[in-house]
Amino acid sequence: MGSLPFLHDPLENSSSHLTKALDTEEFRKQGHMVIDFIADYYQNIEKYPVLSRVEPGYLKKCLPESAPYNPESIQTILQDVKDHIIPGLTHWQSPNFFAYFSSTASTAGFLGEMLITGFNVVGFNWVSSPAATELEHMVMDWLADMLQLPKSFHFSGNGGGVLHGSTCEAIVCTMAAARDQMLSRIGSENLGKLVVYGSDQTHSTLQKATQIVGINPENFRAIKTTKSTGFALSPAMLRLTISSDRAKGLVPLFLCATMGTTATTAIDPLGAVCNVAKDYGMWVHVDAAYAGSACICPEFRHFIDGVEGANSFSFNPHKWLFTAMDCCCLWVENPSALINSLSTNLEYLRNKASDTKQVVDYKNWQIALSRRFRALKLWLVLRSYGVANLRKFIRSHVKIAKIFEGLVRMDNRFEIVVPRNFSLVCFRISLSAIVSDDHYDGEEYNMVNEINCKLLEAINASGSVFMTHAVVGGVYVLRCAVGATLTEEKHIREAWKAVQGQAHTILSACIVDSA
Amino acid sequence: MGSLPFLHDPLENSSSHLTKALDTEEFRKQGHMVIDFIADYYQNIEKYPVLSRVEPGYLKKCLPESAPYNPESIQTILQDVKDHIIPGLTHWQSPNFFAYFSSTASTAGFLGEMLITGFNVVGFNWVSSPAATELEHMVMDWLADMLQLPKSFHFSGNGGGVLHGSTCEAIVCTMAAARDQMLSRIGSENLGKLVVYGSDQTHSTLQKATQIVGINPENFRAIKTTKSTGFALSPAMLRLTISSDRAKGLVPLFLCATMGTTATTAIDPLGAVCNVAKDYGMWVHVDAAYAGSACICPEFRHFIDGVEGANSFSFNPHKWLFTAMDCCCLWVENPSALINSLSTNLEYLRNKASDTKQVVDYKNWQIALSRRFRALKLWLVLRSYGVANLRKFIRSHVKIAKIFEGLVRMDNRFEIVVPRNFSLVCFRISLSAIVSDDHYDGEEYNMVNEINCKLLEAINASGSVFMTHAVVGGVYVLRCAVGATLTEEKHIREAWKAVQGQAHTILSACIVDSA
Repeated sequence: MGSLPFLHDPLENSSSHLTKALDTEEFRKQGHMVIDFIADYYQNIEKYPVLSRVEPGYLKKCLPESAPYNPESIQTILQDVKDHIIPGLTHWQSPNFFAYFSSTASTAGFLGEMLITGFNVVGFNWVSSPAATELEHMVMDWLADMLQLPKSFHFSGNGGGVLHGSTCEAIVCTMAAARDQMLSRIGSENLGKLVVYGSDQTHSTLQKATQIVGINPENFRAIKTTKSTGFALSPAMLRLTISSDRAKGLVPLFLCATMGTTATTAIDPLGAVCNVAKDYGMWVHVDAAYAGSACICPEFRHFIDGVEGANSFSFNPHKWLFTAMDCCCLWVENPSALINSLSTNLEYLRNKASDTKQVVDYKNWQIALSRRFRALKLWLVLRSYGVANLRKFIRSHVKIAKIFEGLVRMDNRFEIVVPRNFSLVCFRISLSAIVSDDHYDGEEYNMVNEINCKLLEAINASGSVFMTHAVVGGVYVLRCAVGATLTEEKHIREAWKAVQGQAHTILSACIVDSA
Repeated sequence: MGSLPFLHDPLENSSSHLTKALDTEEFRKQGHMVIDFIADYYQNIEKYPVLSRVEPGYLKKCLPESAPYNPESIQTILQDVKDHIIPGLTHWQSPNFFAYFSSTASTAGFLGEMLITGFNVVGFNWVSSPAATELEHMVMDWLADMLQLPKSFHFSGNGGGVLHGSTCEAIVCTMAAARDQMLSRIGSENLGKLVVYGSDQTHSTLQKATQIVGINPENFRAIKTTKSTGFALSPAMLRLTISSDRAKGLVPLFLCATMGTTATTAIDPLGAVCNVAKDYGMWVHVDAAYAGSACICPEFRHFIDGVEGANSFSFNPHKWLFTAMDCCCLWVENPSALINSLSTNLEYLRNKASDTKQVVDYKNWQIALSRRFRALKLWLVLRSYGVANLRKFIRSHVKIAKIFEGLVRMDNRFEIVVPRNFSLVCFRISLSAIVSDDHYDGEEYNMVNEINCKLLEAINASGSVFMTHAVVGGVYVLRCAVGATLTEEKHIREAWKAVQGQAHTILSACIVDSA
């Protein structure tokens, strides 16, 4: 049970030791100290290996087994952050972070989080902090406007938007709404017949949400995609799968279409798949977690053409719109479906404003009752940078990715595996760099996958960059996802040199091996 | 669609306007500015009406209809926060906030949030930031120790803890785990037979979770409580209800027992209800959202005696352990039940550390894939204050509540409705203050409820304090929940004066009316 002095409480009767938990002057002093600490961290961020090098269990060895009984100074704690936490971080804000999709920090997003935490209001309903609800309402309409979402998703068009923490939450909520809407028509005894559709490239969040809301796991369809459609969902395959399910007496419920898949940023053809879904009365959710942000630029907006056929749409400003974690925007065409599934009527929250139904009570649009004032950080980001700069930031990342793509194309040992849509480049050492023969067999396919896997490990072990991988159509690809706020052209050029350097070593060894 | 210059992009070809989204020196300058802004807010917080006085729709009138195209200065934005946001806040950090349960801000919690946002890592699995996982692991064991939770909830006892955002998330996850465990035994076709139990005082989060995970809403039991048991769940009633369900062929699945209900901080007898649940093979979750924090003090720990019979336990440090929103600690005895229900195997997250199963991948313990580094703020709170001061803070709130209770008892127009357990006092103007006759009828009961409702409205309209209400056993009670970090004895004495003043006015009018 550790070594806490549980029964003896030496300080119990001495009030002299009572530190205040919120003393304005202490707050000011320590706050300034931590601002400088973080600014220094950003200043030095390129000095750290991007991917942490610690071994599992490292922290246990550095820190005590139980909470301290007596207070410790902020200086001591910050020293421990420097000595023990920072070495265990994978530096998502490093300009050399090209893994997963980024989580873009920004000054405005940070300041927004400070205000959120400073006010620390819990905006479950309107009255508990009207500004929290009304600013969210407003910011969601602003963003809907920036993305040119159909009027039906705006509050003014009888739809509406809400801030969730994650795409999974957005999908759980919309799927529960779809499920309850459907069951109210066909009877709750038919829950076991409901079917959910996505592609084999849809984020696994869909499968998790399906499981959480109690849909039979056997009724989850991950429709196969191929390279021929750029790993996008085929409307014909979708229709075929749905018909087959219908023939078995099952009930098609929910389709998640993706705009910018995680593996390769593939784009499901929204218009066509929405048409198929419409024929079967299904709910369509569009997951644009990463690439949604790009649609604030006119030149990328066409990728969500057809979204007007969907019932809901979500994207994550914490990924690529310079808003700190966590922040997922969800719009629905029919808020009452959401509210019917997620409402609770709590006597202790009853108030006149809610009773008159003049106001939005966001607790009925999400899983939790409690909620942070997330709109504040989005509002700060939108205002501090303005639409003009936000577009510039997005375009600058895309430009950097294009440069990387160009560098890859110039090196004939490498290939681009799928066309680049946004700021993700999917590349690898090509088969031809290893085998001169044109008659490749399965073994050689495996070999090239293994070599690329080794290449990624070597790149990441160097500490100079961090990239991740995907496997699509049996092909192991390296993902270079440009999106960290601090990344500039020079970083991608250095990253490419690092890739080339490691590739040289690996390919040389290869040739020696086969010689 | 608003008035965004969507097609014209005047800045597109001019790089001179490219503000940096993360410039170290700008960050430093603006960060210091916002620290001072928030410190000033705390300094002036008592000047604001605690409950916001704005009318629905107020913000729309103050702010533009669409996002600005060009950047705005932080000074302009902060001025708008002052002019338009602060008036729309209900001031949860005011020392005169006695509503709901508090969300306790603290300097350490704030600094923790700053570091979380500064690093902005996404710790879905170990490798994505080992420190995030390992610190969470450690802090959850520290806290389990502080609460003297059974060894079986500690990682070292093959259980383990995880940080969620809210109790609802904790209940959704544990209920999904319980559901899947049960269905794997009895077959998924029996989902419609599963039954969930709580009391009529259990937080509505339980009902919402039941609905989300796809349990038939008709199979949700809110067992009636009465004043005779202090509105706690009766083990006998629980057994009776379960037997009756079993007799109908239903399958008892999940019980949520509460330690400190929202309305009155009633305490379900954990040992006894766990014994009943055990007889039926049910999962028991203990929701100690608010009062769990008190159990770090030895004198309150006995309230969770019997917790060793439960399968999971949660409490919210964001409520009463000086940790900013959001932070809910969940411990489970059997993490693999959780992991079996919530796991996803994502190729793009594959890594050696996870493959060897040496590490915890917290994405499999929660709804979302993404997660903030919440452990950092808890760690800062525990270290900055130490167990000694945290106990002091809790005790100081309890002491202030006791003072309020004493004041109420001294005024014979008022009554304490249920015994005070922690820092919540449930009180009201008593029937005898209004009606001298001993033969009360239903009409008089309604009248006293109405008068108390009016009293609460008058108190809150004054702006000097904010309290909320509950209705238990048909009785409308005022809740004075002490828990804001800044609340001192003087504030509760002023609050009582405000209550008395309003009561005087209302009761005088009453007497005039009936005269």
